[in-house]
Amino acid sequence: MKTDALQKRLGLAIRRRREELGHSQDSMADVLEMHRAYYSSIERGEKNLTIRTVERLARSLRARISELMAEAGD
Amino acid sequence: MKTDALQKRLGLAIRRRREELGHSQDSMADVLEMHRAYYSSIERGEKNLTIRTVERLARSLRARISELMAEAGD
Repeated sequence: MKTDALQKRLGLAIRRRREELGHSQDSMADVLEMHRAYYSSIERGEKNLTIRTVERLARSLRARISELMAEAGD
Repeated sequence: MKTDALQKRLGLAIRRRREELGHSQDSMADVLEMHRAYYSSIERGEKNLTIRTVERLARSLRARISELMAEAGD
């Protein structure tokens, strides 16, 4: 399904950006005050995130939302 | 609050795009199968939308999500 594809691609874009910054999943989860399993499920594209959460993720990754979305191919 | 500001800016970007295309709020609501009051509240920036909903909005406006977000200043 198209929309699931978007979640997957956004999750991958977030993962790439995090790895480029040299952060671990655990440190991201700590900074974002999220459970580690929840953060991990975001990178696997399992969550239909709200734009507020995407905004928080983008801030932590020092990226604009538009950059993350473009990197996700949308 | 910053995140509310994002919702407002995204709502305005959606409104501008819709008006450029010459669509009414009612016709957008019909295409999206949303209640008219709900669609209207999106343009007023009152909803913390999910990325799936933003994707549906972008498709209806023949835009990429990254374009809408860049237009919203993020």
